[in-house]
Amino acid sequence: MPAICILDKFEVEKNERFLKIAEDLTPPLLEEMIAPESLITLGHNIKGEACIDSRKPLDTLPGLMLKKDDSVILDFGTHHVGYVTLDLSFLGSHPDAPAYLYLRFAQRLDELTVDMSNYEGWLSKGWIQEEYVHVDVLPSTLALPRRYAFRYLEIRVIDTSLKYGLTVRSASLRAVSAVKMDQVAPLQSFDPLLASIDQVSCRTLHDCMQLVFEDGPKRDRRMWLGDLRLQARANYETFRNMDLVKRCLYLFGGLTFNDGMLAGCIFLEPEAEPDDTYLFDYALLYGSILLDYYEQTNDRAALEDLYPIALRQIDIGLSYLTEDHVIPDHSGDFWCFVDWGDGLNTQAASLAILIYAIRYALRLADHIGDNATIRRLQEMQEVLKESAIRHFWDEEQKLFVSGAEKQVSWATQVWMILARVFPQDKCHELILHTIDVEPRIRMVSPYMVHHYIDALLRCGEEERALQEIRRYWGEMVQDGADTFWELYNPYNKNESPYGSVALNSFCHAWSCTPSYFLRKFFGRKKTEHNNS
Amino acid sequence: MPAICILDKFEVEKNERFLKIAEDLTPPLLEEMIAPESLITLGHNIKGEACIDSRKPLDTLPGLMLKKDDSVILDFGTHHVGYVTLDLSFLGSHPDAPAYLYLRFAQRLDELTVDMSNYEGWLSKGWIQEEYVHVDVLPSTLALPRRYAFRYLEIRVIDTSLKYGLTVRSASLRAVSAVKMDQVAPLQSFDPLLASIDQVSCRTLHDCMQLVFEDGPKRDRRMWLGDLRLQARANYETFRNMDLVKRCLYLFGGLTFNDGMLAGCIFLEPEAEPDDTYLFDYALLYGSILLDYYEQTNDRAALEDLYPIALRQIDIGLSYLTEDHVIPDHSGDFWCFVDWGDGLNTQAASLAILIYAIRYALRLADHIGDNATIRRLQEMQEVLKESAIRHFWDEEQKLFVSGAEKQVSWATQVWMILARVFPQDKCHELILHTIDVEPRIRMVSPYMVHHYIDALLRCGEEERALQEIRRYWGEMVQDGADTFWELYNPYNKNESPYGSVALNSFCHAWSCTPSYFLRKFFGRKKTEHNNS
Repeated sequence: MPAICILDKFEVEKNERFLKIAEDLTPPLLEEMIAPESLITLGHNIKGEACIDSRKPLDTLPGLMLKKDDSVILDFGTHHVGYVTLDLSFLGSHPDAPAYLYLRFAQRLDELTVDMSNYEGWLSKGWIQEEYVHVDVLPSTLALPRRYAFRYLEIRVIDTSLKYGLTVRSASLRAVSAVKMDQVAPLQSFDPLLASIDQVSCRTLHDCMQLVFEDGPKRDRRMWLGDLRLQARANYETFRNMDLVKRCLYLFGGLTFNDGMLAGCIFLEPEAEPDDTYLFDYALLYGSILLDYYEQTNDRAALEDLYPIALRQIDIGLSYLTEDHVIPDHSGDFWCFVDWGDGLNTQAASLAILIYAIRYALRLADHIGDNATIRRLQEMQEVLKESAIRHFWDEEQKLFVSGAEKQVSWATQVWMILARVFPQDKCHELILHTIDVEPRIRMVSPYMVHHYIDALLRCGEEERALQEIRRYWGEMVQDGADTFWELYNPYNKNESPYGSVALNSFCHAWSCTPSYFLRKFFGRKKTEHNNS
Repeated sequence: MPAICILDKFEVEKNERFLKIAEDLTPPLLEEMIAPESLITLGHNIKGEACIDSRKPLDTLPGLMLKKDDSVILDFGTHHVGYVTLDLSFLGSHPDAPAYLYLRFAQRLDELTVDMSNYEGWLSKGWIQEEYVHVDVLPSTLALPRRYAFRYLEIRVIDTSLKYGLTVRSASLRAVSAVKMDQVAPLQSFDPLLASIDQVSCRTLHDCMQLVFEDGPKRDRRMWLGDLRLQARANYETFRNMDLVKRCLYLFGGLTFNDGMLAGCIFLEPEAEPDDTYLFDYALLYGSILLDYYEQTNDRAALEDLYPIALRQIDIGLSYLTEDHVIPDHSGDFWCFVDWGDGLNTQAASLAILIYAIRYALRLADHIGDNATIRRLQEMQEVLKESAIRHFWDEEQKLFVSGAEKQVSWATQVWMILARVFPQDKCHELILHTIDVEPRIRMVSPYMVHHYIDALLRCGEEERALQEIRRYWGEMVQDGADTFWELYNPYNKNESPYGSVALNSFCHAWSCTPSYFLRKFFGRKKTEHNNS
């Protein structure tokens, strides 16, 4: 099902002062020159998945003559984001026809085995990282103008001529990011899996930190509000680039629409513009990003500038309430994200997220000293908690249900726990019961699993939280992740909301939060202990 | 059958002084901005050929929203060579994915109806004028860096996204040539077909006159020696760009190989280099180009510089003679061009072309005052004429035959006439007899038909020459030619030596010679007369 939002009414209100602040905080992109590590050939493992069949050293590349239909795959060692330059030449007679090349950039090996020309899903084929290039003059330097997110580059020769073959004298990558990997010390853990998970998290965040916190440098290459919240949290425990968070808060705050709504995402080019996408949960969570930022930086001016924006989202959220104090069921629309996965009913979670957001708004109001708001929201919070239990709690199942069909999902339980609808001990019972029952409507995105880990920690289940990080993100590492993936359903590893797993983003911001959890909640002792 | 030459031994001798002279004569490219005339849709006529089904005015272009799989075809009115810029924008929401476009440039409508992805002929797919382009930011200006030769441009949207569609605000072409069309006054003829043939000839020559006389601006985009000879002749009657001829003579002369051989063609980039292709007939005809140039310009310095090069080609040609004074049969190789067309035996024509070339060498020697050479070549000429008759004349058929299988072809008769193996009256009988017999091995390329027209004129058959021009080039005009084609076999209009007619060049230098004939041999009166 296509998940897009197109608003009929969409009147943008730009706050030029905010946008100026954001612009002044544009980070310089730091560059690093990366050479490929080796040439590889592909094979398949016993599970039928693509794997590396053989490796050749890089110094064999220049001597390789590529004729029609020949190809070579370069392995750049790990995932990078940046610009590729190929130094091309030829063997044989003087080139008497243009060389015609097909280039394919892949985050994972699997992408190199899929014929994407037949892709008919609802996402744009424009996201496929491929190029067809004519090279009229050889030798020549082919500096590709577009940015790619990848580890593997396949260079396939569509044709040269009968008189010559193409050679690749060298390939280089100018990798870019707003931060440097060596700014973050490796996690001190004797558990190599946790150390790997943290490293992959940091690499994921690093590669997504560009001129803004991008959701994914392959796709969508822009800033989504929900992703920003998790990235900022991981950033505080790692790269600590406060200016980039501030810039992003001001970009969203400076680009509201329809009387103050926040966009689900922001485009930077050709100039900063909001998307005409409203996501109920993302907009509400802006206050949480602002509070985190303020508590990290004590940036009073930003707090005062942006507090009204955060508060406005709460009021917009409240405006959707029925007389009976529930949010109507919008589950058929791309309106409240919560998680990917077909068939998830988001009605109960919508209310839970509203309650959750009010808690952060109250803390913001407290910093501001806005007592009238505090009184008003405190009252509302109680009304909504009572409503949540009255409408969605199923005493028989001991679980929250959602929608007309009373759907039981992991997501609903998790958000009710994070909303603190029940006291902590009852939340604890609920999460254990949920784990026991294993609702059929599972979590699919690392974004949702993040909130599950958060809920476990809230319930004092630290050990289990760590175990779940090992199980979920650890399995991605075992599956070969260099950076964490947008989607990971351990029960269906080819799951994609886009009609092909090759359109999934395999370096995705919202997946980077293990570093946040491991570094914030688990000290050296804890992570060592869990290794034993 | 692939027609390529790869020399095992290939030692280039660059004459830096000659190359400097050539470089100093590099013409400035004259530019003209061209807008498309209209938007067209395609249909098929009753013969099943592509035709224009409908036209829309250009001002409908910017309002056209192109979504996935939509396309638009722009008609630039006639054939041009140059660089295209598209001013792109969008309709709908802010673009949330790259626009992915497929562009196809076509000289003829047919090219737009062929799926070239399946082309498996021996020429490089790199010659197909197509591009796949990602546009990451909209609105934006897409200035394509490569040069195209075309009249029609199809812009097909592979994908945008569900949220927006592409628009083309404008398209423009910066056409380039070393000359301008308005430098040549239209042919004064009351026969509109002859006027059209002349106009199309001039346009063909104009589009091929770039930094050198190119054979075809779509393919091969370089200078071939045989094509240069005919282009220079047409140029003397039209644009009269003497410097460009001189530059090309010096380029060939400055880039010999293997003790003085001239290359079949020259590459300009990344620097001037000869192809490792030797064509026996092309090399011999260099002297004819030089003589024409000298007689047009009286450029004594060039004559003295280049005479030894021309003479060397004769000596190389003579070195291939057997003791019995014939050229061995190389018909299976790409060694003596003569014409396209499968199965043509070139042995007899090789000898005829050698005799023909000696006549031009004698005239050069006369200008130089090289009496020793004159004596030597005059003797040789007589020996070879006698040999030609002895080996190849079939008294029974009253035709020349060629090769072990005694093949009778048009080409052999034409070249024997041009070599003046017989006195003029007997040549006249031969051409009429050939026309009468209609040998099965026909002429395919306009290059060969040029020599047939030349032979008719030599025999005093002016009327018939004009009729043949009308029949051959006139039929191309009737078939919709904006510029004359590389190949035209009226008996098989889809003939191609390359496995697909779409790889043929439809603006090809060697086809431009009607202007030469019409303007040099037929005054106003003659062309008027033939219209009556």
